[in-house]
Amino acid sequence: MYKLVELQSGVCSAEGFFADGISAGLKPNGAKDMAFIYSETLCDIASTFTTNKMAAAPIKHFKAKGEFQTNFVLINSKNANAMTGKAGVEDIEEILATLPSEAQNPVMSSTGVIGVRVPKQKLIDGAKKFDLTQKNPQNAAEAIMTTDSFSKQKAFKVELENGKSFSIGAMAKGAGMINPAMATMLCFITTDADVEKEVMQEILDEIVKLTFNAASVDGDTSTNDTVMLLSNKKSGVFHKDAFKMALYEIMRFLAREMVRDGEGATKLVTYQITGAKDDNEAEIVAKKLSDSLLVKTALYGEDPNWGRIASTVGASGVEAKEELLTISFDDVCVYEKGNLYFDEVMEKKAAEVMKKSEFSIRCDLGIGNGSFEAFGCDLGYEYVKINADYRT
Amino acid sequence: MYKLVELQSGVCSAEGFFADGISAGLKPNGAKDMAFIYSETLCDIASTFTTNKMAAAPIKHFKAKGEFQTNFVLINSKNANAMTGKAGVEDIEEILATLPSEAQNPVMSSTGVIGVRVPKQKLIDGAKKFDLTQKNPQNAAEAIMTTDSFSKQKAFKVELENGKSFSIGAMAKGAGMINPAMATMLCFITTDADVEKEVMQEILDEIVKLTFNAASVDGDTSTNDTVMLLSNKKSGVFHKDAFKMALYEIMRFLAREMVRDGEGATKLVTYQITGAKDDNEAEIVAKKLSDSLLVKTALYGEDPNWGRIASTVGASGVEAKEELLTISFDDVCVYEKGNLYFDEVMEKKAAEVMKKSEFSIRCDLGIGNGSFEAFGCDLGYEYVKINADYRT
Repeated sequence: MYKLVELQSGVCSAEGFFADGISAGLKPNGAKDMAFIYSETLCDIASTFTTNKMAAAPIKHFKAKGEFQTNFVLINSKNANAMTGKAGVEDIEEILATLPSEAQNPVMSSTGVIGVRVPKQKLIDGAKKFDLTQKNPQNAAEAIMTTDSFSKQKAFKVELENGKSFSIGAMAKGAGMINPAMATMLCFITTDADVEKEVMQEILDEIVKLTFNAASVDGDTSTNDTVMLLSNKKSGVFHKDAFKMALYEIMRFLAREMVRDGEGATKLVTYQITGAKDDNEAEIVAKKLSDSLLVKTALYGEDPNWGRIASTVGASGVEAKEELLTISFDDVCVYEKGNLYFDEVMEKKAAEVMKKSEFSIRCDLGIGNGSFEAFGCDLGYEYVKINADYRT
Repeated sequence: MYKLVELQSGVCSAEGFFADGISAGLKPNGAKDMAFIYSETLCDIASTFTTNKMAAAPIKHFKAKGEFQTNFVLINSKNANAMTGKAGVEDIEEILATLPSEAQNPVMSSTGVIGVRVPKQKLIDGAKKFDLTQKNPQNAAEAIMTTDSFSKQKAFKVELENGKSFSIGAMAKGAGMINPAMATMLCFITTDADVEKEVMQEILDEIVKLTFNAASVDGDTSTNDTVMLLSNKKSGVFHKDAFKMALYEIMRFLAREMVRDGEGATKLVTYQITGAKDDNEAEIVAKKLSDSLLVKTALYGEDPNWGRIASTVGASGVEAKEELLTISFDDVCVYEKGNLYFDEVMEKKAAEVMKKSEFSIRCDLGIGNGSFEAFGCDLGYEYVKINADYRT
């Protein structure tokens, strides 16, 4: 059996990867706002980008390159380079052309305000500060933050039974809950596993669906959402199941951290849907619940208002019946197949569950075998405060 | 040419209709909570109900009756009679059986808390207070309110060129913005027009799509949403175009009033989408915008953040291109087909528009001829306050 050993070195965990974050003066308070990931050798790339039709310039630039390998990713926060047309793509080309010669086929990723040209000279000057021999994953993770209140990293060394090993490391930034600027999720993953490009892309697609695509903060898809996985194959080792499991653990952890860090969020709720007609219908219900304002405010009010949950299941459009539905908060069942046994005792028990900072809401639809798990948060008072402050 | 003359007599405007509202003790503060609409003669019924799979008992009771005529609608607030199974339907049958003999094939409509049996005896006792000779439309409109801050009525006398006329009157209650109890929209319309049932249903379906279904407060579909149109044909007069126009004016007015009265809402925004591939895609964009938390909070912040609007259009999944899109706040164009001419002067102009309590956001997609209009509101500070209060 393989073993996952947690590492603290983020995107520098895999052999031959370097990273750092610096201040290029985009964030007015002098905080880090520009990062790089560099590999000694060229990497295969697996990626998932936003489905938004207004995809930002860095995504257009990446896609226009067709099939390619790279060893350098440049990332900036504070400006999304979105809705900037051809000029936005040309800006990227100009910036990347100034990078040191070690950077081969470099790509860029951005997050921040939409509809403003990037401060090209600041980024060019900033990149000159990069030292490609540095391994400062924490600096890089901080530089890509926007309204995140903490940086997000996760890494594992995967030890196989035969004594060989490979590593996978990642950093991410989350989507603020209703952010004054547009909120974007970015995730960069590096590995020295000897994985084929096609296999890596297939695994990434499968896991994105179960993790980042199951995490809802405000239900919107940004212009810049990006997940990028780079493999330089330096370990010469691969084990599909172990790779998949480690990647799933990393991405699930980061997705949940993003939701936990949603602006003003006080609760991380896991929606576990079972008994749906199929997995697709379970996914529809889970996402409808995690996006529902009615449910989000009930969470915030710590009100075990199961009627809202039932109603939201009913509104989701999937096959569902009042007399087959069961609803639980963790292990406290509040409604079971038409039985209205929600009395004061049970309401108190359910309210106790809802006071926790992390719990699950379980709905069994009683129709078939479809299941899905989604992650959501409440719509908290702090969010209100942030918005009220923003106005003044 | 026909003429619409506004009346102040709500659901009692058409000949032969009576209505009143009383307190049956469901609302703890003694406010009116029970209403009736009665017609001297039997009426044809056109109706639209929620698509929620957990449709409440009154809707199940109505649908189980098949084809029928009625002259009596009983309405209560405070309890939705939803998720109450067979017992909920039996409760309705028992209550309706105690009504005076004038009520033929009576039906019921409810709004309020989900998952609690109706207080049957209170409703039976309440109905005994009804005086079927009363014409108190204002009382009825008040009795159906839940978190509405004002009652909603509209009526027209339709005068034809030949000197003949008929009338249409309506009352409605709105969906609270993220209501502690589940929010429902109810609308009851009465007419003495001599309209065939099939024609009436067809017209109602068409207008619901353009009015109530285009109005978004919190993007949820309740278990109890109901629109009911009763015609007793007493006028002996009908004119299709005039009937349709009057009904459209009434329902559009009520839909907009509901949005304006969304809990904590301070702005009523009309989303005018043009240039979409077809009307369906325009509708998708309009509703995505009116439901978007990012857009709603930008409205509240009076921030002409057109990037959020562009991003939401892009996220809606319809055919859209950065270089074809145009965005305006009323007549202030902030983005036009890739031209980033959003400077300080224009931002100030756009911010002026957003300070108004009522304005339009216009998006031309530049793709085809599809158009749609939707109504939305902001996510205001007052809503936050309500939720904070609710928690304590």
